[in-house]
Amino acid sequence: MTDFAATKAMFNLPEGVLYLDGNSLGPLPKSAGDRVQTMMRDEWGELLITGWNKAGWMGMPTGLGDRIGRLIGAEAGSVVVGDTLSIKVYQAVASALELNPDRKVVLSDNGNFPSDLYMADGLLRSLGPDYELRVVDPKTVADHITEDIAVLMLTEVDYRTGRMHDMKALTELAHANGVVTVWDLAHSAGAIPVDLAGCNADFAVGCTYKYLNGGPGAPAFIYVAPRLAANVRPALSGWLGHESPFAFDLDYRPGTGIERMRVGTPPVIQMAALSSAMDIWDMADMADVRAKSIGLTELFIDRVEATCPELKLASPRNPVQRGSQISFRFEEGYAAMQALIARGVIGDFRAPDIMRFGFTPLYIDEKDVMQAADTLTNIMNNKLWDTPEYKIRQRVT
Amino acid sequence: MTDFAATKAMFNLPEGVLYLDGNSLGPLPKSAGDRVQTMMRDEWGELLITGWNKAGWMGMPTGLGDRIGRLIGAEAGSVVVGDTLSIKVYQAVASALELNPDRKVVLSDNGNFPSDLYMADGLLRSLGPDYELRVVDPKTVADHITEDIAVLMLTEVDYRTGRMHDMKALTELAHANGVVTVWDLAHSAGAIPVDLAGCNADFAVGCTYKYLNGGPGAPAFIYVAPRLAANVRPALSGWLGHESPFAFDLDYRPGTGIERMRVGTPPVIQMAALSSAMDIWDMADMADVRAKSIGLTELFIDRVEATCPELKLASPRNPVQRGSQISFRFEEGYAAMQALIARGVIGDFRAPDIMRFGFTPLYIDEKDVMQAADTLTNIMNNKLWDTPEYKIRQRVT
Repeated sequence: MTDFAATKAMFNLPEGVLYLDGNSLGPLPKSAGDRVQTMMRDEWGELLITGWNKAGWMGMPTGLGDRIGRLIGAEAGSVVVGDTLSIKVYQAVASALELNPDRKVVLSDNGNFPSDLYMADGLLRSLGPDYELRVVDPKTVADHITEDIAVLMLTEVDYRTGRMHDMKALTELAHANGVVTVWDLAHSAGAIPVDLAGCNADFAVGCTYKYLNGGPGAPAFIYVAPRLAANVRPALSGWLGHESPFAFDLDYRPGTGIERMRVGTPPVIQMAALSSAMDIWDMADMADVRAKSIGLTELFIDRVEATCPELKLASPRNPVQRGSQISFRFEEGYAAMQALIARGVIGDFRAPDIMRFGFTPLYIDEKDVMQAADTLTNIMNNKLWDTPEYKIRQRVT
Repeated sequence: MTDFAATKAMFNLPEGVLYLDGNSLGPLPKSAGDRVQTMMRDEWGELLITGWNKAGWMGMPTGLGDRIGRLIGAEAGSVVVGDTLSIKVYQAVASALELNPDRKVVLSDNGNFPSDLYMADGLLRSLGPDYELRVVDPKTVADHITEDIAVLMLTEVDYRTGRMHDMKALTELAHANGVVTVWDLAHSAGAIPVDLAGCNADFAVGCTYKYLNGGPGAPAFIYVAPRLAANVRPALSGWLGHESPFAFDLDYRPGTGIERMRVGTPPVIQMAALSSAMDIWDMADMADVRAKSIGLTELFIDRVEATCPELKLASPRNPVQRGSQISFRFEEGYAAMQALIARGVIGDFRAPDIMRFGFTPLYIDEKDVMQAADTLTNIMNNKLWDTPEYKIRQRVT
């Protein structure tokens, strides 16, 4: 049984803040600052270039990959860390297309995270006018899995509403139609139990700065099914994916298994921070995390719906159909979220009208949820959002 | 006049070590550990998601880009930091090809860093059989710049020998033949004065963990000439290169100027370390760095050649034709480098027979160079390399 009091104690949670935005950027593990400081002083500072071997930097991408792999049902040696999620989406889709050379269509849905669509669109444009990115409504994805589709590229959990696709059923349907699958786990890894091996998934990608708490700009990860890895010709064929990077051959030969999905020099300092976060994740069982997550989200919905009739639930009501976040629609949602943030309850807003709250059992408990719901009720019932200060939208960039 | 005693005092240089491998991984700036610790504790820890605005994380890629830009003769607002160098090579070459749609050949040379060739080859393979990566001898590049070439992709300073291409002359010749240029500055930025604007360069890329001292896995940078930026359709079109990333539109619209070359979420912790290194670089004038670098390399060549006849200079003898490193060929170079490292002189070995020494004026001075030369002389004259222990080659991965 996961000891959630112990995991909560391992995070830095600012006084007076209820943080329901761990699905955007997870909080700081208390050990991460010292871990990074020590790595910089003792490894970079003293070992210098020899740190790549002596401090094991070179093995970190696969070592961290295996620790993430446990949370997403991946086989050992099938996940590697590196780059950003956008880059890993590109790499996965381009590599998947090469496995299906006679087909030209990538199928996705309009609930996918925009950067996934941008990256795929850019890739397909470069491949020529025969290629097509087909974007359909999430509800109709199954109907569009046909024998002209090369790659099915979906984000399992919708970033706005938390709505979940059925990974197992859609992957089965895809395979029955000769389609290669790419699953984006940005809102799945650390949020819900994922069973990549059990679903027979082909490629998967995700980020580590949300539920996994790796810190701002933490690297992404990529999964390739072991049955495919030896046949994948990796797109973005960089030197650290080469069979023998330090031979400096002029010709590329892909490395063994998942190693071939590495590209350039991995971000060692970011990986040191991520390893602190994974120390906490190593204490967690995803079944426990899921059970607690459902309890927290049900509690939040119940209390908010009972007291705030203006807020309309945008997430699926059935907990098995959603991830670990709850979203409500409200026309003045931007202002209401500013009012919440001003009172120490941090969620976020997604245009045009979505107020989004992430529930992260490692450091959020029932008391937090009740307090957040009470603050929201106070704001809604007393129209505390209705001030000019909260209504002026700030550009984020 | 750059105060090199002051810059040297700002680096952590381990006792008993003479570090001539700053061209692989620069040493730790003394301020970097605290800077990163503070960023993690006060910004990530306390500001959480609001750090993107309140701590200015979102602006770091262009802010650091401008500081690097000063060292490479780039216009303000023409450099952005992110990803790895391999990814930036891909992005630059793919974007350059789009500017020259009627041509199918990328010209490079066999002195280029292998990952650049791997990335370009992977890109061209994906574009189809009409595309060609033409790899020629570095001496003959000018002869091969013809009107069928779309993109000229060169590393300015050879990673093994330090031999330099003439960026200005080759760019002029390229433009006269309608060729778009991509310059890799991995061994140039912080090593020699670069004048991208004065050379009329089109694209340039580089890394920040070598001469720039950004730390292991520090991010790369990319330059696009301002006259081109508005017309570049960026390959790797990620959300942070979008005109309005937080509108979450389904369609990609490139951002203004260099912003469009951003891809995914930038590595904030790595960038904090890099900013410490750039504080030191802000104190340096590249003309002073170059003058001192030439003095140090000339001194090293003179002393080694006078005492070690077995070592054959692999770098150009004329200092204006080389970067800030010196390489010698020696059949037992691997063992000799191990003998040097065992005695605290850190250089590196590049197959098959190159002993490579980087000279980094910010923290290496004449006394260091004389001492390194004396140690090498002792090893060579007494055949101290000739022990089984040094001859067993260790795999670096």
